[in-house]
Amino acid sequence: MNVGTTHYRSIWPIGDDAVGIIDQTRLPHSFVTRNVTGIDDMIAAIRTMVVRGAPLIGVAGAYGLALAMRDDASDAYLAVAYQRLSAARPTAVNLRWALDRVHAVLSPLPSAQRPRAAWLEAARIADEDVELNRSIGRHAARLLQTMHASVNRRVQVLTHCNAGWLATVDYGTALSGIYQAHDAGVPLHVWVDETRPRNQGLLTAWELSAHGVPHTLIVDSAGGHLMQRGDVDVVLVGADRVSARGDVVNKIGTYLKALAARDNGLPFYAAVPSPTIDWSLHDGGHVPIEERAGDEVSQLTGIGTDGDVASVRIIDEDTEVANPAFDVTPARLVTGIVTERGVATPADLAALFPEHRRAA
Amino acid sequence: MNVGTTHYRSIWPIGDDAVGIIDQTRLPHSFVTRNVTGIDDMIAAIRTMVVRGAPLIGVAGAYGLALAMRDDASDAYLAVAYQRLSAARPTAVNLRWALDRVHAVLSPLPSAQRPRAAWLEAARIADEDVELNRSIGRHAARLLQTMHASVNRRVQVLTHCNAGWLATVDYGTALSGIYQAHDAGVPLHVWVDETRPRNQGLLTAWELSAHGVPHTLIVDSAGGHLMQRGDVDVVLVGADRVSARGDVVNKIGTYLKALAARDNGLPFYAAVPSPTIDWSLHDGGHVPIEERAGDEVSQLTGIGTDGDVASVRIIDEDTEVANPAFDVTPARLVTGIVTERGVATPADLAALFPEHRRAA
Repeated sequence: MNVGTTHYRSIWPIGDDAVGIIDQTRLPHSFVTRNVTGIDDMIAAIRTMVVRGAPLIGVAGAYGLALAMRDDASDAYLAVAYQRLSAARPTAVNLRWALDRVHAVLSPLPSAQRPRAAWLEAARIADEDVELNRSIGRHAARLLQTMHASVNRRVQVLTHCNAGWLATVDYGTALSGIYQAHDAGVPLHVWVDETRPRNQGLLTAWELSAHGVPHTLIVDSAGGHLMQRGDVDVVLVGADRVSARGDVVNKIGTYLKALAARDNGLPFYAAVPSPTIDWSLHDGGHVPIEERAGDEVSQLTGIGTDGDVASVRIIDEDTEVANPAFDVTPARLVTGIVTERGVATPADLAALFPEHRRAA
Repeated sequence: MNVGTTHYRSIWPIGDDAVGIIDQTRLPHSFVTRNVTGIDDMIAAIRTMVVRGAPLIGVAGAYGLALAMRDDASDAYLAVAYQRLSAARPTAVNLRWALDRVHAVLSPLPSAQRPRAAWLEAARIADEDVELNRSIGRHAARLLQTMHASVNRRVQVLTHCNAGWLATVDYGTALSGIYQAHDAGVPLHVWVDETRPRNQGLLTAWELSAHGVPHTLIVDSAGGHLMQRGDVDVVLVGADRVSARGDVVNKIGTYLKALAARDNGLPFYAAVPSPTIDWSLHDGGHVPIEERAGDEVSQLTGIGTDGDVASVRIIDEDTEVANPAFDVTPARLVTGIVTERGVATPADLAALFPEHRRAA
């Protein structure tokens, strides 16, 4: 999406031998792009979360393999590069998936053809991600357009965490519909939850600001009150996983917003690409919830009084902290799941993807 | 309550000519007490929130007037001192109430008797506040004891904001029952919401730690998930105002916890002294909600890497921020209101205070 007047993706090829990325560790405080010219740089960028978000990490890995092939396209080095890139974020499913896909293209080819083939395949993975999210957003934008027609004023959207273009290659998931509706002239305003403890809402605010979408930052506790006073029309979030029956596993706190939406008669939508739907999982309540380090709660980063990035500890190190990273919004609170094929109620989700129903 | 092995109130007389207070602007990072010896010091302490919390501010004002009488007990100076103390926090109802009460005692007296009478009246106001909160806590502790008998393991309490002894003279409101149950040997553990944006949960964590009550700090978004996984038995909060029908006006985010409690079949209690019940207000939804400065959201204070208190700004100054300070939990989500006279369902609240029913 746009940063000022320039359109950016979160990763892009530069000529045939370098890749541009945005240093996301510097956001929202400063917008810095970096050129990655070799596999070592790319591994470091993935490991230190200079690039983050499952789809983006996958594409970064694919380009990392392509850069490696320019140095040495032998079978031996292909295996080494694949292993090293996989290990950069060992639990990232998309990274492994993208590396497997490039590897499958390269292995039957003679060495001389591998650099170019890898480069094209990485670009293809990126383009497919963009197309997927564009489709999701087209459906969500239609929902927002319909809401605008019905409320006859700007549509008030509440979102949680960052489901924007920074976490994908472009558009994002939940934010894709917001960008497309905004670009189509639908007047809207976004309430952005800060999303403690890691404050990914600040990335959402930065994205929306860079693209020119009106928005307001709020603390995570404020959404219920805003709904009570009639200042929210719809809750629209992304998801880390959706169960076959439509339970939404997403950033901690999503469940509370869904409860408030229900209590105030407001729709709650999760926007996801279909690979996020886990057809093997019926009950989202069975997903093990990652418990992350307490330091994420007790330490905060921002800009200090001297203008440099600084960290503060808000409570002493002896305080016990619990930090569950996700929660599960049960399907009964979900109005619809927005996918690249359209919007479905939880009950109709399987009908939208009959190939999975047959497989089950 | 205790700080280590020493029992503290939040304000205490030192001999006949000074008052001890805790510098609450330094908490939770350091525990510093200060001696206040004159009205100017007390005004500064009230204005800069060295002392905070409605009941504590009232007592501080009363002692401020008593200190002033030691300098000059004339009618003229009584009027000046009253005015200056009132203006230190012009919207604090308790401050005006306590000053009025001391003033009413002093004005008929000859000057020579005023210093001692003021000192005694301030002490009386403090003692009455302690007694009120002790009574509230006795009823809440009984609830926790009953829960312990029923669950047969430690009782898991979730609280929001700081309704502890630091905001009152001793015991606190919601925390009073927790302290008394803990002191009576009821095993319990408290989930402490950090309570963005001002992080008053850190004061709660500090209080509980100082008194030795087991607790864990969580972000405001985590409570719903903890309830879903069965790790919460009861939600217990204070309140800034309770309507006649039992709507609870409290720190922003309380409503979301009440929704989650209801969704998980858990009880939700608000503990308040009866003056917090506004018998003239039926529907809590009519209370105007204070909108505070966005800086409270965008700026955070903690301990910097050099060990000193430091502030960071988490988002640039151009970002629009909304900061509603309170929300309203409708009576239908409230299991009970804990008062100094006992626990009542919202429907039975008026019956507990028949004198107000007659007045209506």
